[in-house]
Amino acid sequence: MKNSVGREIPEEALNIKLANGRKYEPYQGKGYRDGKYIKKQGPTTKIYENPSESKIVPSIRDAIIKTGLKDGMTVSFHHHFRNGDYIVNMVMKEIVELGIKDITIAASSLGDAHDPVAEYIEQGIVTGIQTSGIRGKMGDVVSHGKLKTPAILRSHGGRVRAVEEGDVHIDVAFIGAPTSDEYGNARALGGKGDCGVLSYAVVDSEYADKVVVITDTLVDYPNFPASIHGINVDYVVVVDEIGNPKKIASAAARMTQNPRDLMMAENVAKIMTATPWFKDGFSFQTGAGGPSLAVNRFLEPLMVERNIKMAWAIGGITGSICELKEKGLVGKIIDVQDFDTNAIDDIRNNKNHYEMTASEYANPANKGAFVNKLDFVVLAALEVDTDFNVNVITGSDGVLRGAPGGHPDTAEGAKCCIIVTPLVRGRMATICEHVVTVTTPGDCVDVVVTDYGLAVNPKRQDIIDCLDKAGVKHVKIEELKEKAYSMVGRPDDLQWKDKVVAILEARDGTILDVVREIKPYEDK
Amino acid sequence: MKNSVGREIPEEALNIKLANGRKYEPYQGKGYRDGKYIKKQGPTTKIYENPSESKIVPSIRDAIIKTGLKDGMTVSFHHHFRNGDYIVNMVMKEIVELGIKDITIAASSLGDAHDPVAEYIEQGIVTGIQTSGIRGKMGDVVSHGKLKTPAILRSHGGRVRAVEEGDVHIDVAFIGAPTSDEYGNARALGGKGDCGVLSYAVVDSEYADKVVVITDTLVDYPNFPASIHGINVDYVVVVDEIGNPKKIASAAARMTQNPRDLMMAENVAKIMTATPWFKDGFSFQTGAGGPSLAVNRFLEPLMVERNIKMAWAIGGITGSICELKEKGLVGKIIDVQDFDTNAIDDIRNNKNHYEMTASEYANPANKGAFVNKLDFVVLAALEVDTDFNVNVITGSDGVLRGAPGGHPDTAEGAKCCIIVTPLVRGRMATICEHVVTVTTPGDCVDVVVTDYGLAVNPKRQDIIDCLDKAGVKHVKIEELKEKAYSMVGRPDDLQWKDKVVAILEARDGTILDVVREIKPYEDK
Repeated sequence: MKNSVGREIPEEALNIKLANGRKYEPYQGKGYRDGKYIKKQGPTTKIYENPSESKIVPSIRDAIIKTGLKDGMTVSFHHHFRNGDYIVNMVMKEIVELGIKDITIAASSLGDAHDPVAEYIEQGIVTGIQTSGIRGKMGDVVSHGKLKTPAILRSHGGRVRAVEEGDVHIDVAFIGAPTSDEYGNARALGGKGDCGVLSYAVVDSEYADKVVVITDTLVDYPNFPASIHGINVDYVVVVDEIGNPKKIASAAARMTQNPRDLMMAENVAKIMTATPWFKDGFSFQTGAGGPSLAVNRFLEPLMVERNIKMAWAIGGITGSICELKEKGLVGKIIDVQDFDTNAIDDIRNNKNHYEMTASEYANPANKGAFVNKLDFVVLAALEVDTDFNVNVITGSDGVLRGAPGGHPDTAEGAKCCIIVTPLVRGRMATICEHVVTVTTPGDCVDVVVTDYGLAVNPKRQDIIDCLDKAGVKHVKIEELKEKAYSMVGRPDDLQWKDKVVAILEARDGTILDVVREIKPYEDK
Repeated sequence: MKNSVGREIPEEALNIKLANGRKYEPYQGKGYRDGKYIKKQGPTTKIYENPSESKIVPSIRDAIIKTGLKDGMTVSFHHHFRNGDYIVNMVMKEIVELGIKDITIAASSLGDAHDPVAEYIEQGIVTGIQTSGIRGKMGDVVSHGKLKTPAILRSHGGRVRAVEEGDVHIDVAFIGAPTSDEYGNARALGGKGDCGVLSYAVVDSEYADKVVVITDTLVDYPNFPASIHGINVDYVVVVDEIGNPKKIASAAARMTQNPRDLMMAENVAKIMTATPWFKDGFSFQTGAGGPSLAVNRFLEPLMVERNIKMAWAIGGITGSICELKEKGLVGKIIDVQDFDTNAIDDIRNNKNHYEMTASEYANPANKGAFVNKLDFVVLAALEVDTDFNVNVITGSDGVLRGAPGGHPDTAEGAKCCIIVTPLVRGRMATICEHVVTVTTPGDCVDVVVTDYGLAVNPKRQDIIDCLDKAGVKHVKIEELKEKAYSMVGRPDDLQWKDKVVAILEARDGTILDVVREIKPYEDK
């Protein structure tokens, strides 16, 4: 069955069993479920009326045993430690050594730090993966058909919806926390390796049957204000190190000096200023990649010149936007993830920088997330096609190596979604006829900016009119595609086997696309 | 059937239908449900994916209409505005004028400010009341059998449990908020009349089908950090005034100068210092009443003398404990309600004063509330009997005029629960053979301090030993009762009709006692 972005969704994918029995549907276009009602799952909780019970257990292994984790269950993790994370590997090692098998990992994201999981997949111990990001060896083995069930890839907002709606049921959540007290009140600040916020882990703490907080810095009760509340936590484990602080947060994302990136960033800023939403009190999100991050630099003089201020910025936060706030150009930062140490320092030390939950950030199935109120979002892409569909998950070789993250959430929510990407990368056209995998549907994407010109989605005549009025030149996206193909050639189609190895869920829980097992390249 | 505090619980009460179908049981003793599991209700939520939808509606009446409120439904309110609240009356007036009937009010508490509701009860429009406090005209009409169904009275922690477990299903929550943005992110600070925290309303916002925030101070989006999260809010109404700021919080609770109160307070402090829990890092809650509040004054020199500090204080907060914090004698205040303007000023301006939810404070059915970790709580009482059962709900005439509040929650949780009360009040013995109504069971009460001596619950031999060692004199509680009766006489039994007018729920959802319709006094 073809969905509304023209992707064939096979029965095999539509018949996947979700934990709540909900039937998958193909993607129907943006806002398909808007205004409908859902009944959230009712979490199970143990009654802890006894004042003298301690939640501290001596080791991760003891905690696993106490939770009753057994074959076939689902465990969850968050990704605030990014590439410095030790938690996933420490916990999975113990699970494997305990002989527990048929485990599904439901993480907010997974990365290169989790290469050891690839082996557990090959051994058939890990049989399910639900995540936003999938990279490194894990992406490779999944793309080669080694995971028993298709991986389910979701946006950050889509994950909260899936947990709350019960598409995935978390049996045990393992939540790494820079600090915790003995009751599991946990914070992202004040430990050996801070991560700024714990936003993605909140839904796990609320919906998992059992919740284990793992920390390397036990602090006095009560650890307030808490990001993870002790009322949702069963056990607390103290370990030597929850992660490598140097990798938990890299140093401030360096502002690019690449002239191509700077030119694209400047054009993004010009587009923004040509629209009616660039006025005092506007809202904004941008990514941490080179050209996206550089947009901040070009916005600053334009805001000063017009004497306007940004009311608030959200998203994965970098030091760059914090600097604008400290200069008085941004009112508030509402933070779901920190990309660098400067951002962490800012939420620790400065005013008007607040933590939010992933549900508040981007959940499409609550009563209104922050993304709904975004004026502008600037996002990157691996590929964009002539229907404005974006791919951020599969590389040019068809292998899983990315993460939808907040991309589809902010793209749908923002009044103006701008994708910024070079026209070609190496020998590959970024603007193409059909992206390998649709991760953000074209009906949510408004403008594409490349180093060879920009194109506006024809559905957004209002933006076209603004740019024309402001004298900002734009072309048809087909022209960008042709230009790209003229530079690097039209690529041969990737070759796939039949097996579906991953499902790309739209944020509303329909299926946007599937990824099939990669077939070794054969000369035709 | 008699429950474990010796109260006869009639079938009529045990057969009351709860919203989730759960069957009432008689109270079985403290910790009866500890270690068991409950499945929380799954709230229903509308999916607000559409960025352009506004939540602001022009009036309370419009909001009521939009929520679909109809006959037989349950509406909820919080009591952070205390006697200055305008919300309950404003909303109920519109509901009545719209001709909607058979309404249950499920409030965190109700007070004298809500006298107009008494008339709606008499008119048969309000047919159910679920609350902690019931006073004034409302207490009177309920005690005289005018409410169609028995009122259900719960502790603050028990209410959260009841909502989460689904004993009561809130169709529409009306949440008064000192400030809100257009998406319903609401705070208790920054408005025309601040109330400090919005702790009791959080569970309503999470579990009600529809949530309406009513404010008199609309602020820019996002109103952060929010106590009530916009992701749970359907509609926002702006009105002229949500309450009378002078009554929302009275001026600082004045420290009593009554020598009898001071003597009792000093004795409470002496008892505390005689126990092993009075050491550096102890935790404490005390009430806002004369002798309870005065305990702070006597603790101060004892803490200084022994060079120890209180780690944290919780509860309904007064300026008195905030002063101790500012002097460096209390580490943190974790706040569920503010009793005076000084406490509100403290959470607005000072450090180490945090808001918590009612669930974090006292819910017996989560994974561990603050009350579980209390060392000491000092509480008042209307009556205490020789089984240490406490009554804080019915007056000596049998009429409803009080509130269990956090009394049963803290009494069960604290290592040492001290009740402080004069031996007689006017012509009534406070220490008696059988309290009119059991609101806190005797198995949770450890020490009773009166102006004629103190008694320790014989179940707490450990505390008896401590007091003996410290040379603190104590007597059997029967002696206190006899002394009281010798002073004011043994009262005649109250006379009741058969009709059950109120259920006193234990915090775990079993039935502690019932209140029957009052019978006009007849000479025998």
